[in-house]
Amino acid sequence: MVQLKFPMLIINFKTYAEATGKRAIELAKTAEKIAKELDVCIVVCPQHTDLAKVAESVDIPVFAQAIDPVEPGAHTGHVTAYAVKEAGAIGTLVNHSEKRVRLDEIRQILDIARKYGLFTVVCAATSEEAAAVAVLKPNAVAVEPPELIGTGRAVSRERPELITNSVKLVSTVAPEVPVLCGAGIESGEDVKRAIELGTRGVLVASAIVKARNWESKIREMAQWLIERK
Amino acid sequence: MVQLKFPMLIINFKTYAEATGKRAIELAKTAEKIAKELDVCIVVCPQHTDLAKVAESVDIPVFAQAIDPVEPGAHTGHVTAYAVKEAGAIGTLVNHSEKRVRLDEIRQILDIARKYGLFTVVCAATSEEAAAVAVLKPNAVAVEPPELIGTGRAVSRERPELITNSVKLVSTVAPEVPVLCGAGIESGEDVKRAIELGTRGVLVASAIVKARNWESKIREMAQWLIERK
Amino acid sequence: MVQLKFPMLIINFKTYAEATGKRAIELAKTAEKIAKELDVCIVVCPQHTDLAKVAESVDIPVFAQAIDPVEPGAHTGHVTAYAVKEAGAIGTLVNHSEKRVRLDEIRQILDIARKYGLFTVVCAATSEEAAAVAVLKPNAVAVEPPELIGTGRAVSRERPELITNSVKLVSTVAPEVPVLCGAGIESGEDVKRAIELGTRGVLVASAIVKARNWESKIREMAQWLIERK
Amino acid sequence: MVQLKFPMLIINFKTYAEATGKRAIELAKTAEKIAKELDVCIVVCPQHTDLAKVAESVDIPVFAQAIDPVEPGAHTGHVTAYAVKEAGAIGTLVNHSEKRVRLDEIRQILDIARKYGLFTVVCAATSEEAAAVAVLKPNAVAVEPPELIGTGRAVSRERPELITNSVKLVSTVAPEVPVLCGAGIESGEDVKRAIELGTRGVLVASAIVKARNWESKIREMAQWLIERK
Repeated sequence: MVQLKFPMLIINFKTYAEATGKRAIELAKTAEKIAKELDVCIVVCPQHTDLAKVAESVDIPVFAQAIDPVEPGAHTGHVTAYAVKEAGAIGTLVNHSEKRVRLDEIRQILDIARKYGLFTVVCAATSEEAAAVAVLKPNAVAVEPPELIGTGRAVSRERPELITNSVKLVSTVAPEVPVLCGAGIESGEDVKRAIELGTRGVLVASAIVKARNWESKIREMAQWLIERK
Repeated sequence: MVQLKFPMLIINFKTYAEATGKRAIELAKTAEKIAKELDVCIVVCPQHTDLAKVAESVDIPVFAQAIDPVEPGAHTGHVTAYAVKEAGAIGTLVNHSEKRVRLDEIRQILDIARKYGLFTVVCAATSEEAAAVAVLKPNAVAVEPPELIGTGRAVSRERPELITNSVKLVSTVAPEVPVLCGAGIESGEDVKRAIELGTRGVLVASAIVKARNWESKIREMAQWLIERK
Repeated sequence: MVQLKFPMLIINFKTYAEATGKRAIELAKTAEKIAKELDVCIVVCPQHTDLAKVAESVDIPVFAQAIDPVEPGAHTGHVTAYAVKEAGAIGTLVNHSEKRVRLDEIRQILDIARKYGLFTVVCAATSEEAAAVAVLKPNAVAVEPPELIGTGRAVSRERPELITNSVKLVSTVAPEVPVLCGAGIESGEDVKRAIELGTRGVLVASAIVKARNWESKIREMAQWLIERK
Repeated sequence: MVQLKFPMLIINFKTYAEATGKRAIELAKTAEKIAKELDVCIVVCPQHTDLAKVAESVDIPVFAQAIDPVEPGAHTGHVTAYAVKEAGAIGTLVNHSEKRVRLDEIRQILDIARKYGLFTVVCAATSEEAAAVAVLKPNAVAVEPPELIGTGRAVSRERPELITNSVKLVSTVAPEVPVLCGAGIESGEDVKRAIELGTRGVLVASAIVKARNWESKIREMAQWLIERK
């Protein structure tokens, strides 16, 4: 059964060729293997065009990378909450730094996602932005400084204060909203620090997608999600 | 075998609920049936999330509704030419009135589509815009006055001069680029007039997607594509 | 001396012909007359092209209608905080419903405005959005339901609960941020109710700009800003 | 009397601090001095906020850096053709690489500019784009490869074939539309080559705005606009 729980590891496939088409399914299956092995929550975010096939191939949560703030109807080239749900997704990223949207659109997307029962993770560049979007009551916020994305310089190593500030600010205005983080995360150690700093999970893209060995890289990161007792 | 030829009937599924998920496959199969029965070219444009499954279900041309002007890589929520091709699409709409893009992006999209062998149909609101985009050498241009889209008032009845002007202007600057038209097309008679006015095909959305009987509506329109000798 | 204080009446000139060029100066002078007569705070927001001349003509606060999130440099057609300040503006509207910006841009605009000492009024469509932007610590937020803008159906009459909810939500997450409101405000009575509902001022556009008699309309509204003791 | 004629030197002030406020007027006056001294056409493009004061200070053509595709009315933060004309501008840049607009907006902007008698110079990144926009019949097109803008590596030295191709392609589809060029132009020699390659003028920004001596830099460039007999 597909289970969403914190802490979580979200793998963003972006539009990497290494994670497109059949390889998207393979990567998702690898993630599923580790998720079951370690009994942790790993979410995969394939491209829109791979959503349906990935969702029917694995038994872990599948998220869209983004949705548009529109309902079914006369919209060409748009991606609706309805369509991604029909395709088998159970959540979506919102406002990723590579797909920023207007504030009113974030609010509309959250309203529509709620209606269709989609889990929402809204990205933010700073702790202030994280707190602002937390006020809109998404299921989680993810603070990701754009300047570190794809650099291999992990936010949890390079800017720990950004994470602790985000956790603190969000807890002040919307204590029920979990904070995730991302950007530059490339090792298990980076994930460990992120969790220690108070986040409930991480977003990872290139470090996993472009890893020589998907399985070992995912395992390296996911092991830090096992709840300590 | 998938065959692209003029004249063509392009069915834009938009994000209509009636043409999402399983119903997208059913609608595409209905189009395929008529395409084979009449030996005409019918192109289906499902949503991104339905592209792969539709493409593997039918043997007629499948187009994306839009693509982004980016190559595979670090782009979240984007749709690449590479991905839609991997999903089985052989072409794409560009600059639909519900998904307008900047001129430089149209040019970039055409460059990328060419690289991946995708057939391109660029939409335009006026005859001047149609001629302008024709200069960029897409595989076809489609003139669609936005104010008629979805109205049931067919461009070929309401604004025949727009079509003849477009055909004339395009033939002056890029004679090799075929002109299609769309907006408000709802009957076989509308298709007939569009062809008589010099276009090489039509784009239809709601009139087919929301028809009570997909098969009879598609047949009604598609019969006018049979080449007269 | 230019004085900014609450409660305030903000007159948005938009791009109305009636408030362009020389008429922008006349309208601003009329506002100045009432501001001095009643000793209340009236802010005028002329178009970018009229900012400098309006600012040198009157001794009341002049705001830009919007600024871009960029510093001086290689930006063409943009409006910087630096430039509007040089032109004599002391504040700016942000994220007006006719000029929505992305959340990250709102944050950047606020950072830049702070740097240049510009007073910021961030618009929002709903009470949730108002609270979200309040977290970013602008000088004020203004809740304006887009569907009422320009209708003459005042937000304070039609949707009083939107105002009270906004005041309440904002006070929870950022109690120091004053709440204004706008949309459809057309009479002194509408202003009175807005103030009674807990706002610290109103935004008005067409009701004043298109009034037959600017002076009497402004006076009618501004009198409700006189602090009751 | 303000005179627009080819060849022309267009100075884009962008949002450079060096060309804001009083310094915008000074720079425009310097350009005016050389324009009269050499009897050549020099156009200045100050920021929106400086348009009115620059236009009343000089007797050479003043252009806006951009306008929005809207008429006067309920638009906040927009810049209309009507407003820039009221401010004294007689033309506008369109689709600058730092302010790209959609194709349909370019067409609308040209329609509106024509209505108000504004001279239009539409920018394009490639020769194909230049030809495409030329079909829309602006008063001129300007080909400016974005990758050279601000580099000091002049388009006329680095990519002469781009210029000759643009001139050739535009002359095929719209022979009456003059071609200008820009990007990296920093010396009189660069201007000379641009004219020799068939353009009817150049766009310059940083090389003039950031020159230690505005007058000598403008003279160095403008002398190549003197018509040879």
